[in-house]
Formats: sequence, structure tokens, C-alpha cells
Amino acid sequence: MENFSEWFHNILEEANITDARYPIKGMSVWLPYGYQIRKHMLKVYSELLDKDHEEVLFPLLIPETELAKEGRHVKGFEDEVYWVTQGGKKPLNEKLALRPTSESSIYPMLSLWVRSHIDLPMRYYQVVNTFRYETKHTRPMIRVREITTFAEAHTVHSSSEEAEEQVKIGIEIYKKLFNELGIPYTITKRPIWDKFPGADYTMAFDTLLPDGKALQIGTVHNLGQTFAKTYDITFENKEGEHEYAYQTCYGISDRVIAAIIGIHGDDKGLVLPPKISPKQVTIIPILFKKGKEEVLNKCNEIKESLENAGIRVRIDSRDIRPGKKFYEWELKGTPIRLELGPRDLENNKTVLVRRDNLEKVELSLKEDIVSPVKNALNDIDGLLRENAWDSFKDNIKSVEDVNEISSLIENGNMVSFPWCGDEDCGKAIEELTDIDLLGTYKEDIETDDVCAHCGKPAKHIALIAKTY
Amino acid sequence: MENFSEWFHNILEEANITDARYPIKGMSVWLPYGYQIRKHMLKVYSELLDKDHEEVLFPLLIPETELAKEGRHVKGFEDEVYWVTQGGKKPLNEKLALRPTSESSIYPMLSLWVRSHIDLPMRYYQVVNTFRYETKHTRPMIRVREITTFAEAHTVHSSSEEAEEQVKIGIEIYKKLFNELGIPYTITKRPIWDKFPGADYTMAFDTLLPDGKALQIGTVHNLGQTFAKTYDITFENKEGEHEYAYQTCYGISDRVIAAIIGIHGDDKGLVLPPKISPKQVTIIPILFKKGKEEVLNKCNEIKESLENAGIRVRIDSRDIRPGKKFYEWELKGTPIRLELGPRDLENNKTVLVRRDNLEKVELSLKEDIVSPVKNALNDIDGLLRENAWDSFKDNIKSVEDVNEISSLIENGNMVSFPWCGDEDCGKAIEELTDIDLLGTYKEDIETDDVCAHCGKPAKHIALIAKTY
Repeated sequence: MENFSEWFHNILEEANITDARYPIKGMSVWLPYGYQIRKHMLKVYSELLDKDHEEVLFPLLIPETELAKEGRHVKGFEDEVYWVTQGGKKPLNEKLALRPTSESSIYPMLSLWVRSHIDLPMRYYQVVNTFRYETKHTRPMIRVREITTFAEAHTVHSSSEEAEEQVKIGIEIYKKLFNELGIPYTITKRPIWDKFPGADYTMAFDTLLPDGKALQIGTVHNLGQTFAKTYDITFENKEGEHEYAYQTCYGISDRVIAAIIGIHGDDKGLVLPPKISPKQVTIIPILFKKGKEEVLNKCNEIKESLENAGIRVRIDSRDIRPGKKFYEWELKGTPIRLELGPRDLENNKTVLVRRDNLEKVELSLKEDIVSPVKNALNDIDGLLRENAWDSFKDNIKSVEDVNEISSLIENGNMVSFPWCGDEDCGKAIEELTDIDLLGTYKEDIETDDVCAHCGKPAKHIALIAKTY
Repeated sequence: MENFSEWFHNILEEANITDARYPIKGMSVWLPYGYQIRKHMLKVYSELLDKDHEEVLFPLLIPETELAKEGRHVKGFEDEVYWVTQGGKKPLNEKLALRPTSESSIYPMLSLWVRSHIDLPMRYYQVVNTFRYETKHTRPMIRVREITTFAEAHTVHSSSEEAEEQVKIGIEIYKKLFNELGIPYTITKRPIWDKFPGADYTMAFDTLLPDGKALQIGTVHNLGQTFAKTYDITFENKEGEHEYAYQTCYGISDRVIAAIIGIHGDDKGLVLPPKISPKQVTIIPILFKKGKEEVLNKCNEIKESLENAGIRVRIDSRDIRPGKKFYEWELKGTPIRLELGPRDLENNKTVLVRRDNLEKVELSLKEDIVSPVKNALNDIDGLLRENAWDSFKDNIKSVEDVNEISSLIENGNMVSFPWCGDEDCGKAIEELTDIDLLGTYKEDIETDDVCAHCGKPAKHIALIAKTY
């Protein structure tokens, strides 16, 4: 992958994932194949959340008065909010925002719902579209004006400790999610000058794309009581007193799909983890006039037995050359291809080709076919994850002097270094390198190291990278 | 159900379906229980569509120039379009519409996608939110400003005959859908003065709510070549000539869920068809200090065996009176309740209570429990449908003179009558009765009957009803 940006642009189009030619800049259409990938990703996501979160769906529009209530929050978004000002031919009495994120739509309702400590904790999630009037250069799934897949959780608690605990639970959920998708990540606490507007603090997951740029793929925020005070979310505690609630929220977006595509893909196209591949096996019958029916019957038989084992299978029996089909399904990243021609049938075998390493093995049709296919799928799943982590870890370099940062970053690395933790020092590093700090990777460490910039005793390990 | 409007309003709140207190009129929040009902309804819908439609997702916003292209279409919507005019603090160069429906967002892309007759037919669907700036009185799910569940299909064809055939296929899909949900319906061809703006003709499904008002729950439109000409959707036909494509579209909305709730519900609350009930069985352990653990163990055992058979089950083991639980799950419409106390356990039995008719039967725990529960679920499913159709058919009255219409309609009926089919005559009937024609129920019939209004030879059977 020489030029990731170009590769990414092309693969979205060629693999039928999104179409960026929609007549509004920064807004794309999800095409059928991409939509199926998105659907399977969300299935993995929902299964994790459904255990102890309830799914809800809030309106898209937010009255200006509600959005404006939390000052710090609105300040973080005011430059990028789309406003509805007109209904039919008439101006509206009050401007309505397209949600840039949903705190100001959800929390006025929480104020009505939360009554007593016995109602708590409450844990909700929703998958919605959100909008940002981006002025920067847009890129499908990565920097867009309509985020079509904003999967956000919002929780309410009766104590600070419980909210703190929920932050950890949120982090665990995302670790599991990214693990299922084979996406490697770092978890950092964002610098206080880069936290979510209104939050006490923000924990963030970043991964690294092949061009050496970090991509934020998930965030978990401890909101403390800030929004509870703004939106008047109170509960009666055990002592019968009214107290402001403690809140957290956490979210992921389309960027998770961008990460799957970018991290696992290769020069031949997509390489999809089995869990989210629309189909996990493509059976390609090699058809000649003679024995056509027998080959197709056998393909159907194999499909049925794999499907009965819960594997997603397609047969590509189109009347085009097999080579063209191989090319297409390699481009589209189906984990396993099974080839079956008349001679294979005669010899009672089929050829299994893995998309990840393109290895071929012959499988006997006299024996059970489900186990070797299942094993190969598991193997692909494990290997994709492992390879992605290996290459990710290779690209995190540690330095003791901030002057070494720039050249490492130019070579596509993330860089860690001991840091004193002072805001002034952090901002000076950002200015010096012209790169943003991701945050602190390890906090409050016991060390004799000194800050890589100011030389004072180091408190944390910080992480810095070029970002999207 | 004495006052349906009040009943409907209350049940949405009490059964945790939607919350209408959101600070914008006509926009509601889907609450967890309602969201699950919606999810299961959409699952039934998607299974029907997925057979030969591909799911996609288009952007919400539509540039004014695209929306304005099809004059008849925009005229039908211009009074109710929400407009985004501002991004951040600046006015946008071009106004952007919140989609009132998606033709003008999808069809410019179809113009890029459709090339040759071999690409056709194309069949897409998406489930999205759409917006109407309603000036009439709003009502959750029935007349709203954000339609949160707009499930729309769009198809492209290479001949008029194929489009015509697709209209029939669309109708068949919706018949299956409403059949699965136990919703009775009439299918009429809407009067030409009430068809979808831009369509050649519109076929519509209407049902009847307990207050005697018809509710449009689905429409299927033959668009002919109108939009293809506007958005330049052409294909190369077999003769190598460029030809405008033929299109259809069809959609359903949240109203389907309103119909499920309104039609099957009773004075005790919701009565949910098993297919879309969040859980199909609620097990209620009757707990005393003595034998508590044994009872709970048995409940878990029953749950497991039912779940293994694909049945959705909850155990309600909350520390509140059983009577309160009975009341709550009757209100929330779970099809089956199983009661199990220490004495039941001693006698090796459990009591099954059906929500639809409140009948109780004892089941032996010595025998297989899955079959009687499955049979009861099937029975409930069948009976809900049957009862709904019986009552629906009872409420369609036929007359030979339009002067009999008003009193029948006042009594909660739909009325059918022979009609000449002339626009002038139809509009005169609407004026006379102050009620809108639903359309023609049966078309081009052979009859000696005369038009119930003008006395000319009748061509069709028309249907008229008070509508939402």
C-alpha cells in the first residue's frame, strides 16, 4: 500500500462500500456491500451493549435553548452546528440544531426520568446520525459532515465512585469490541485542553492507519455532575435528600469501519475479519458444459451444510470467468473461497483459499467440511488480530527527548515519552512539534525518569502522533 | 376502550413505548420497551425485503436544487419541508432540506448507477428518519414531525410492464408483512387527485383504528418515467438505444406500530402479536421464604428449555407482589405468562395464562413444556389476526346511495359504494360528505349498478372513511 489515502479512496468505490459522489460534500451513500459490513459491525457492538444497556432513540433536532444551556459544551460545538431555521415557507420561532452529539437532547429527558436512587444506575444507548459542519478537508467515514453511525451510550449514577467504575466498564466494552474486530489501540487520558466539552475527563482509544496517522476510534467521558447541574438531573438519595446525578457517556462512529478497512486491507483490496464479513465463504463453481449440474448441486450441498453450522455463504454462479470472480471476492475481502470444478468433484475434493495469506489447501469432500472451514475462519480471525497488533506495537517508539519526536512521526510512528504533566509544558511540546498530544498513556508512574521536554520529574508516559 | 385517543395516549406512556414530552412538538423519544417492539417489527420487515432488495443508507440532507427539480413532487411537499440554512455561525450557500421522503436524494445517484438494461432491475431499501413540518394537530406515531421509522423501497426497471409487475410484488410484500403482524387492511387505488406527488398512480393500504378512523399504513407507487426524466436516469436497452428507466417506490412508517398497538390492544393494555413482542413469555416465580431457591431454579430451567427452542423469555423475580407483576405484563402485552410457586413445584406443574383471552391452563412439568407453549403462541398469533379481520370486515358497510355514507361513518365504519370514477363526481362526494375518498377498492368491474352519487353506470367500487 504505497499511498494509503488513494488506496482508501479507491477501495470504498471498488468494493461497493460508499459512494462519495452525493451532491453534498462530506456526505456519502452507504452502498449494499458496505451497508452489510456496517450491519455486522453494529451487531457485534449491540451484543456487547445489550447485556446491561437499554436501546432508545431520541429525536434528531434540538431546540437552541436546550443546546445553549451548557456553556462549555455548546462552545465546543458552536462552529460546527447545522441549524434548521425554516419550516415550509416560514421562519421557525426557534432555531433547531441537527444534533452534533446527543447530550442536549437526552439530558432534558433524563431530568424527567430520574427520581430516586432506586432508579439508578440507568444505562442507555442509541445508534443515530449526527452532524458537524466541517470546514476541514473531508474524507469518507473519517472526517464527514453526516456521521451516519454514531453509537453512543449514556449512563446515570448515584455516586461519583459508580460513575468512575462505569468509565472502566465502558473502556472494557470497547476493548472487547476492538478485539473482536482485530483493531489494535492505545488508551490515553486526553489532555485537559482536549477533553470532551463539559466532561471532567476523557479517555480515548486511538489506532494507527497505514499512513502513520492516529485515528480516534472511541471515547469514554466521565461527565461528573456538570450536565446534571445544567439539565437539573437530581435523585433522592438514601438519606432522602436531593442530589445531582453523576453521568458518563461513551461513543464510537463510522471510523471503526474505516479502521477495519484500513488496518487489515492489502494491495489486493479488503481483508475482512470473519465476524463482520457479509459472507464468510464464497463458493465458486468452475463450470463447463459437461457436469455443470453435478458441480452446482455439490456447491449447494456444501453451502447448506456450512449454513447449518451458522456460517454465512454465497455461491457465485454468474456466467463470467472464474478468474474474474477470484479477483472480485479478493477485492471484497471474503475470508474464504472454495473452488469446485468437475475434476475436483471426480476426485471428491474442493480447494479452500484463504484471503488473508492466499494459502490454498485441498479439502476432502468425503469427510466433514464444516470443521476445516470453521478452523480456517478462527485462524484468520486470530491471525488478523495478531498481525495488526504486532505492526501496531512496532510503530510505537519511546524517546527521552522531545527533539527526537518529529523524525519518528515522519516515519509513521506514534511516540511515547516521560512527561511532567504540566499544561504549559504539554502545550509547549505541541507547539515545538506542531503535533497534538494524544494524552497520557500511563498515569502517575513511579519513575526516576525526567520529563522529555522540561527536565522536571516525570509523572506520566505521554503519547503523541499525527492525527486525522 | 371507550375513548381510543385517550387510551392510545396513555398506553404509550404506561407501557414505556414513547415519551412525547420531548421539547419539540411532534417529536417523541422511543423508550426501551417501545424500541424493542420497533426492532422486532423491522426484523419481520427486513426479512421480507432482504430476499431481493439490497439495503442502503442515503444522507439525510438534500440540496434545494435537487429537491426542486421535480416540480410536481416539490409542490406536494413545499409547505412541510424543514430547511437547514446555517452551518456554524454562517449562512449556507445553498439551503439543505431535511428529507421529507427520499426520491430527490436517491434518484440523482441512480442516474450515476444505472447504465445498461443488464444492470436492471435494481431494488433498494432503507430505513431512515424523515421530516414533515406538520401544521395539523400531531399525535405520536400517527402524525409526527420526525417520522423515525420510514422504511422505503425504490426500484428501477427496463420496461413499463416490469414496473407494473413490481407494484404487484410490493403489494404482496406488504400483504405478507401486515399478515405477520395481524393487521387487517384494504388496498385501494388512491384517487388521482390524492396520489403521491409525481407518481403515475398510488396503491394504498389502510386499516381501521378502534375510533373508526382509517389509518394509511403503506403505499406503493408506480412512478412511471417521471422521475427518470427529471433526474436523467437512463439505460441502454437491448437495441443499444438510451431509454428513460421505469421506477416504483413503496414505503411504510411508524404507523404500522401504531396499528399493532391500536388494533390488538384492550382495556388492560397492549396485546402484542408473539412475533414482535420483546419477550414472548414472562415467567413469574411466586416466592416465599421457604423453597425460594428451588422455585427460582425451576424457573431458570424452564427459561433455558424455552430459549433453546427459540422462544424469547424473561423471568420477573423482582421483590414486589406477584399481582403487581401480572398487572404490569398484562399492560405490556406479553403473550404468555407462566406462574410457578412452591406448591406448583410440589405438584410438578406451572400455570400458563394467555394475554389475549386471559385463559389459564395448568401444564405438567413432568412433560415437555416447549410444545404447549409453542402451540399457545401460534394460537394467539392466529386468533389475534382472525379477530382483527372479523371486526374489520364487520366495519366495512356498502351503500348504494351516497346520502347513507355520513351516518355510517359517524358509527365508525368504512363505506363502499359503486362509483362512476369521474373526478368531478368524486370531488362532489367528498364535498357532500366532507370526508376524503380512500380510493377505488375494486376497479373496472362488470356490473349493472349505478354510481351512488351521479347515477351514471358504475365502473368501480369506491371506499370512503374518516382518516387520520
